[in-house]
Amino acid sequence: MGFWTHVANVGVRDDTDDLVVIAARKPCAAAGMFTRSRFAGPSVQISREALAGGTLQAIVTVSKNANVANGKRGDDDARAVVAATAAVLGCDPGLVAIGSTGVIGRPYPLDRIVGHIANIDVPLEEADLLSAAGGIMTTDTHPKIATARAGAATVTGIAKGVGMIEPDMATMLTYILTDAQVNQADLKRIFAKVVERTYNCVSIDTDTSTSDSAIIMASGDAGPVDPQSLEAAIGDVAMSLTKQIARDGEGATKLLEVVVSRAADYGQAKRVAKSIVNSPLVKTAVHGADPNWGRVAMAIGKCSDDGDIDQDAVAISFGEIAVYPEPEGGAPLERLERYMAGEEVTIHVALNTGESSATVWGCDLSAEYVSINSEYTT
Amino acid sequence: MGFWTHVANVGVRDDTDDLVVIAARKPCAAAGMFTRSRFAGPSVQISREALAGGTLQAIVTVSKNANVANGKRGDDDARAVVAATAAVLGCDPGLVAIGSTGVIGRPYPLDRIVGHIANIDVPLEEADLLSAAGGIMTTDTHPKIATARAGAATVTGIAKGVGMIEPDMATMLTYILTDAQVNQADLKRIFAKVVERTYNCVSIDTDTSTSDSAIIMASGDAGPVDPQSLEAAIGDVAMSLTKQIARDGEGATKLLEVVVSRAADYGQAKRVAKSIVNSPLVKTAVHGADPNWGRVAMAIGKCSDDGDIDQDAVAISFGEIAVYPEPEGGAPLERLERYMAGEEVTIHVALNTGESSATVWGCDLSAEYVSINSEYTT
Repeated sequence: MGFWTHVANVGVRDDTDDLVVIAARKPCAAAGMFTRSRFAGPSVQISREALAGGTLQAIVTVSKNANVANGKRGDDDARAVVAATAAVLGCDPGLVAIGSTGVIGRPYPLDRIVGHIANIDVPLEEADLLSAAGGIMTTDTHPKIATARAGAATVTGIAKGVGMIEPDMATMLTYILTDAQVNQADLKRIFAKVVERTYNCVSIDTDTSTSDSAIIMASGDAGPVDPQSLEAAIGDVAMSLTKQIARDGEGATKLLEVVVSRAADYGQAKRVAKSIVNSPLVKTAVHGADPNWGRVAMAIGKCSDDGDIDQDAVAISFGEIAVYPEPEGGAPLERLERYMAGEEVTIHVALNTGESSATVWGCDLSAEYVSINSEYTT
Repeated sequence: MGFWTHVANVGVRDDTDDLVVIAARKPCAAAGMFTRSRFAGPSVQISREALAGGTLQAIVTVSKNANVANGKRGDDDARAVVAATAAVLGCDPGLVAIGSTGVIGRPYPLDRIVGHIANIDVPLEEADLLSAAGGIMTTDTHPKIATARAGAATVTGIAKGVGMIEPDMATMLTYILTDAQVNQADLKRIFAKVVERTYNCVSIDTDTSTSDSAIIMASGDAGPVDPQSLEAAIGDVAMSLTKQIARDGEGATKLLEVVVSRAADYGQAKRVAKSIVNSPLVKTAVHGADPNWGRVAMAIGKCSDDGDIDQDAVAISFGEIAVYPEPEGGAPLERLERYMAGEEVTIHVALNTGESSATVWGCDLSAEYVSINSEYTT
């Protein structure tokens, strides 16, 4: 594909891999989308700058430490990691993006990181994206990777992220690589469209990360590809990674999919769908397979600014099981309980305010989520 | 005070009290604020109508069943309960408000409710508001009651609500009674002001109820009272009940208070404060006394529409312990951990975008919240 990787442990937090370098042998067409957080870290800022020109040669990632809220020192440290990476690869530092993920407000062990990078053997090894996916993990239980074909080209993506997940412009960390030949403008347009319908439709806990970064690089090695099939392939990879993230949400035991249809517009459909997928009461009911469908009505209801939503026009079903308005003989609660005991729960809502629809993904809320997050730094 | 109560079990769900009638011997000045939910139940609709004229004689409450999302039957049932109450009290049904709280989407056991009401002995017994506070509970662990004096008058309030709590215009169910003599316009103005700074500042789980109702009645028996001291007394009662609700949040072990100061305006201060108090990652860190203060930075950061928030101008402290910007020698994490192990945790944030401030209340997120809510109906 024209990409190389280096994956290692430099002791950021423990003995698992925490440093990942992904590099191409020459500048690639590239695009990125980032968190809108007002506490975005220096990694996000530096990567935005690097991508402003539409080309990129490498991405260096430090996991287990987000390097956020560290003031000027954090900015200096991030730039030092980028400079070290550019030096060892022999490329312009302005072509190196940086991703960082983990605890907030703790400085990097900078000497260990930079010392390791300076001694990396170049050229790097042939890309091992499964190892790279492992190296960017924090509390993820498994590496997330997906691949698809577009004509002669391959599209492969990796992602991490299982908590602090309600991406706003992008998600957690996700990198998609392709050997398709595509111009910068097309790549940017395609990527923005895909991100909006995939990563921007997942929420694990409503907590938008300070480090969300989604980056795509195209080496061009496989030659030109039909733009539609490239978009489809990128969409497939992003969708697979989105569902992998949702299913691996911290403490999650189930994938929750919410489909809102017949809405006034896409924005309304997504607002209502997000309200449902983010409701702790819906999430706990799904966790316990409690057929308490009324909580879905509650979560629709709290979209109080959507004045055209009329409870008498709304329809709610779980999978194929209609529960509202009340079916003949009442909602089949035992059947609903059996359905909710499965590993995937899909909630369908028809608003009947228009013709638009949206689908979002999330997960159940378990005691394990609380346990993971009440002792994260200690 | 000029009020009477009747509290009983009619078997709505179990053998705990589930029917509460609060009545005055004559129409009272009254005001109310209600949920903005698009799935508001018929109780909310009927109470809104009753309060439109600014007078009320009684409130009937059914707990353990919200009577929401039950279609025309739900509306008919609610009106039947009101009619039965008015009949036994000998008053105009238009002067009777109704509160209802509990599971959504299940019909009332109407015959049992109406049959019981028809046989209530009148006049009712002298007001026992502690019993009334018990009778309106669902998963509350204790009745919530508060009282204050305003000149010769008494102000006493009760409340219920520990889950599905992020009130938008009012909260859960809360009734405040006073024997102060006050005109309707003043009462409405005072109550709206108090509700905005108390009940509307609590959030347990971001889930706005379909049944939120806050009602105040003034019998006038104690004669006129200085409006400012009346407002202070109503404010004290509402504030006490607000904190009781937060502290008794489902599964809660701690009261979480968030004070945001030096904001551009009250709206910004409250938005940021709510973002912090609602963050599952902040709530779980507080639960586990994990000194992971970076999550507060994250929760401020996700207010991405507040473009004037600058991370370099923000200051964060827990109680008296400053953590951001980094103090000399680094954030005192051990001291922070000891502070967070207490039963009350206060987070202070100075935005330095202006001069306004807001305080909100919530609670930690525990495995017990998940356990309570994953098997609520089963």
